[in-house]
Amino acid sequence: MRTKNSRRQPRVMVLRIGHRIPRDSRVTTHVCLTARALGADGVYIADVQDRELVERVNRVAQEFGGSFKVEAGKPWRSTVNEWKRGGGRIVHLTAYGLPLPKIMATIRRSHADKMVIVGAEKVPGEVFGLADWNVAVTNQPISEVSALGVFLDWLFRHRRLEVQYPNAGIQIIPTAHGKNVVRN
Amino acid sequence: MRTKNSRRQPRVMVLRIGHRIPRDSRVTTHVCLTARALGADGVYIADVQDRELVERVNRVAQEFGGSFKVEAGKPWRSTVNEWKRGGGRIVHLTAYGLPLPKIMATIRRSHADKMVIVGAEKVPGEVFGLADWNVAVTNQPISEVSALGVFLDWLFRHRRLEVQYPNAGIQIIPTAHGKNVVRN
Repeated sequence: MRTKNSRRQPRVMVLRIGHRIPRDSRVTTHVCLTARALGADGVYIADVQDRELVERVNRVAQEFGGSFKVEAGKPWRSTVNEWKRGGGRIVHLTAYGLPLPKIMATIRRSHADKMVIVGAEKVPGEVFGLADWNVAVTNQPISEVSALGVFLDWLFRHRRLEVQYPNAGIQIIPTAHGKNVVRN
Repeated sequence: MRTKNSRRQPRVMVLRIGHRIPRDSRVTTHVCLTARALGADGVYIADVQDRELVERVNRVAQEFGGSFKVEAGKPWRSTVNEWKRGGGRIVHLTAYGLPLPKIMATIRRSHADKMVIVGAEKVPGEVFGLADWNVAVTNQPISEVSALGVFLDWLFRHRRLEVQYPNAGIQIIPTAHGKNVVRN
């Protein structure tokens, strides 16, 4: 329950930069599903309109519940600048950044809304300067999909893995061996 | 240092099932890089030979250090059966399984080698029965790439994110804003 003194939960949006059709269609879908499953509020796909992908992910989001949304087509730079002007902070996931375990406490202490930037292969050099935090989920070559997953899991203190959505049309019931799906 | 009483570190291998060329080329590459960066010993790509992918990932692994290896082409069923005959245990990552936070303590208690199965889209129904543990990284539609990342991070108690390899030819030096790469 929210009381007068409770702080608003910061919003967490993911910004996908460098998406190309059709090359990145599947990986960007993985980015979106990961963002939703691990507690982000939505994904902006920068610069490119990809109606098919947006519709596919938003349909899944609607079926499985929650209020997650994907939008596409707005230039990355104005998206970042607006976010910053609104008081939001920028996290950029990159193997070149500071190790997640070293920087996470600082990020968690900030009550600002967070935008998490994940690039497809090379990201404009400018992003490293615009970001409040360049964060490395290992300083090794990795996938932006798993980097995002691990980052969000840490951001939410490893407590977001069992969320059930009250408005879910389709619900998976955890099972030791098999499949159990309920349609409401 | 290993003493007489210390236990051997269990091996962790990833088994990628359902890989199709060229459809899964990029996503399976993400699976392999995630497996390596987060501490698995290697990946078996089942049933399909994909020399280009294997060479590409093994080249990255060699450049960045460690002893991680990808192999491809062996049928998934015999890979699983051999693993089990050798005393190894099977983890299957699936949204239908038991929530990671509920099952992780049991998995960590086992000192057996672990094979972690990740499928591309549908997995043969048999796998749910062969697995010792069907594990859900959220019971939501997610990516096998991020599911693997989060699973390995938990398996290694969130302590594998800052590993440096002594035999690395290329090494990324963590940096707040920018890129710093050392070639040894």
